[in-house]
Amino acid sequence: MKLQGTMQINDKGHLEIGSCDTVELAESFGTPLYVMDEQYFRQNCRSYYRAFTEKYDGVVLYAAKTLLTLAICHIVAEEGLSLDVVSGGELYTAKKARFPMERVYFHGNNKSVAELKLALEYKVGRIIVDNRHELLMLNRLAGEAGVQAKIMLRLTPGVEAHTHEYIKTGQIDSKFGIVIENGQAMEIIKQALALENIQLTGLHCHIGSQIFEMQSYTHAAEVMLAFTALVHQETGWQPEEMNFGGGMGIYYTSADKPQPVIKYADMLVPAVQTLSKSYGLSVPKVLVEPGRSISGPAGTTLYTVGAVKDIPGIRKYVAVDGGMGDNPRPALYQARYEALLANRAAQQQKEMVSIAGKCCESGDMLIWDIELPAPVPGDILAVSATGAYNYSMSMNYNRLPRPAMVLVRDGVADIIVTRETYDDLIRNDLVPERLDDRVVRIAGAVR
Amino acid sequence: MKLQGTMQINDKGHLEIGSCDTVELAESFGTPLYVMDEQYFRQNCRSYYRAFTEKYDGVVLYAAKTLLTLAICHIVAEEGLSLDVVSGGELYTAKKARFPMERVYFHGNNKSVAELKLALEYKVGRIIVDNRHELLMLNRLAGEAGVQAKIMLRLTPGVEAHTHEYIKTGQIDSKFGIVIENGQAMEIIKQALALENIQLTGLHCHIGSQIFEMQSYTHAAEVMLAFTALVHQETGWQPEEMNFGGGMGIYYTSADKPQPVIKYADMLVPAVQTLSKSYGLSVPKVLVEPGRSISGPAGTTLYTVGAVKDIPGIRKYVAVDGGMGDNPRPALYQARYEALLANRAAQQQKEMVSIAGKCCESGDMLIWDIELPAPVPGDILAVSATGAYNYSMSMNYNRLPRPAMVLVRDGVADIIVTRETYDDLIRNDLVPERLDDRVVRIAGAVR
Repeated sequence: MKLQGTMQINDKGHLEIGSCDTVELAESFGTPLYVMDEQYFRQNCRSYYRAFTEKYDGVVLYAAKTLLTLAICHIVAEEGLSLDVVSGGELYTAKKARFPMERVYFHGNNKSVAELKLALEYKVGRIIVDNRHELLMLNRLAGEAGVQAKIMLRLTPGVEAHTHEYIKTGQIDSKFGIVIENGQAMEIIKQALALENIQLTGLHCHIGSQIFEMQSYTHAAEVMLAFTALVHQETGWQPEEMNFGGGMGIYYTSADKPQPVIKYADMLVPAVQTLSKSYGLSVPKVLVEPGRSISGPAGTTLYTVGAVKDIPGIRKYVAVDGGMGDNPRPALYQARYEALLANRAAQQQKEMVSIAGKCCESGDMLIWDIELPAPVPGDILAVSATGAYNYSMSMNYNRLPRPAMVLVRDGVADIIVTRETYDDLIRNDLVPERLDDRVVRIAGAVR
Repeated sequence: MKLQGTMQINDKGHLEIGSCDTVELAESFGTPLYVMDEQYFRQNCRSYYRAFTEKYDGVVLYAAKTLLTLAICHIVAEEGLSLDVVSGGELYTAKKARFPMERVYFHGNNKSVAELKLALEYKVGRIIVDNRHELLMLNRLAGEAGVQAKIMLRLTPGVEAHTHEYIKTGQIDSKFGIVIENGQAMEIIKQALALENIQLTGLHCHIGSQIFEMQSYTHAAEVMLAFTALVHQETGWQPEEMNFGGGMGIYYTSADKPQPVIKYADMLVPAVQTLSKSYGLSVPKVLVEPGRSISGPAGTTLYTVGAVKDIPGIRKYVAVDGGMGDNPRPALYQARYEALLANRAAQQQKEMVSIAGKCCESGDMLIWDIELPAPVPGDILAVSATGAYNYSMSMNYNRLPRPAMVLVRDGVADIIVTRETYDDLIRNDLVPERLDDRVVRIAGAVR
């Protein structure tokens, strides 16, 4: 496992994160445990802030869907980033964390009336309108509220980034955005410009996730600016800001070759500037929406090893106390992860094993074929790069309580998400009276 | 969409379930909404009870992992079924519902010490031991508690049912159970028989899920009984009970051809009887563990249609207010579903559309290519056969609150799971003081 952020191996041969011994974290807080490396998370925020905001006066929106809790909101706010939210729930979380609402951008392919009303009531910075239905609904709601809604329009540039099929979003056949090449985008821009309660500030596109080829972004910029030139020609309008979404790939395993953020900025922003000038447009502010590349590498999950099952000549299964409940990505995307034994991190001799999750489902395998020092029950397994799309996608399948999350820094560990209890699992369960009566009557008696 | 259970189309052309108008349900309880057809659920329980318990004196265990709430526990108890739980959380739920503990069977490939202690404390009927580690741990814990633990051993018969790869569980290369053909199963049986605090009552196997070929079960019976004969020869022990797991396939779409439960029983139980006699064994009680085939067809999810996006010549996307958050199966297994417009269920003219979920993820597509009467915003979409592995696998991805569930019967609808609120989403979030201080200091000021 590649050591990232503040990870190091201490004198006891234990993995440390944020100067906290992870074996002690597992003892103190139990497992499974999400560990968030605060310094690394902030460093990732700062790489973006420096590259896009300080160097180029752009705006960096942290993509909340990768990981959002009240504490994470506070950190993102402190680091000067803006926030990309995709639902009323994320918006509500930001509000409760007192995140500056003018720095919130509201996304989503199917926002409800209630969500749009909430966004207007909270006075979010921008609403990224995805489709005509939403545009007209928002115009009406803004009118009723007596405000002008500042919006960007999400377009589908027809650029496909090389990535897993599930997370491609730039192609034409997509549930997101409005297609440029068939004229629908031009039409909706004209419509937006004509609406009384709508103020169109810019355009948005998103070409995918876990992208390593930086040319994908410049290609998107070419398509977007060429289209902008047409729009300017036809309408006289031009965008103050241009949002290129997120998508920077991160290191999960040695197959992944992440690019430095500054390279991304130095490729994208000058391209936008040059293209704008060549089309005779004023240069728009460049917005980006990183999520995974901020939260992902900063998170590590600790598990306790339980049953170890050797099927000679076939495979050695090492079962841990979590799995697809706290990390659905291997089951959903065949995602691959690295890991080490946190309590024996310095040991050299290794054997090939596979890490099984605890769910009653064959598909609940965390890692196939990984070399570890012969794991035994009680070992602590650390899986890296679990900060994004783990807690945010976690579920109670098999009625497993969701893990706690601790924020570690300078030897201090603070709980930022408390572990669910069994009572949390039944908190929303109700039993109609008629059922409750009957079961008392028949309890114990197999009819 | 095939009308199942108590579904019918009423005079208004609306879909009814349990004599409740689903359009009214959507209005009263909001969407997304899980609707559970009580009569159909009970009928499915009874098909199993009659086929296996009344006809053959067997035991039917409802697989809790497909759907478990307090109310569902009550119904299962009333219908005379036993319960297959796979975690402390499911066990706790059963206990809170006052489910008779002697009818609870505790499964899992990696039970924790805490879970086994809870199972012993609650005096569950059986613990299905998956591996040697668990066997030894349980023997020690039972000794400490001064009790004998009644167990079954989960074996891997090497039978593969024709089904989706993720839900195959009978093959040798599996995280579940103990392999028969390499001698490991024989070894652990001898070990179990020698342990002081363990009482081995029977053997268990599970060959997969969503199975339509009934021969798979008789083939499993052949392997299990041939092995049992060997065990009897070597040890003198023979099982009082033999558990063949679950797996009966259900109707999701017209591609699925479910078999009647009685056919399953009439194939499996006589095979076990005949085989036992031919090997000179006493006939064991037959246990089965249906889950999906009880809860699955009885559940329907109601959604409200939002944005409709036509990309001419490519596809018409119809977005609904739920998706992979409340039903991860299409994303996880490429599962297919049928649907209809509940408010226009009688309309004939149709067009081809695709149903998009609300999550900010291209993979969140509920149904590709389905014929519906030109959906418009506000229509109510009913997706059938969502009773199993929907609520139980639901998540808060994108911070979407999980839906409510109503139990419908004879025109009455009772909430059995209340809808999550935005406050539920942040209930477990904590903000360390140091972060809270800082954000107040910098709030509003982009540094």
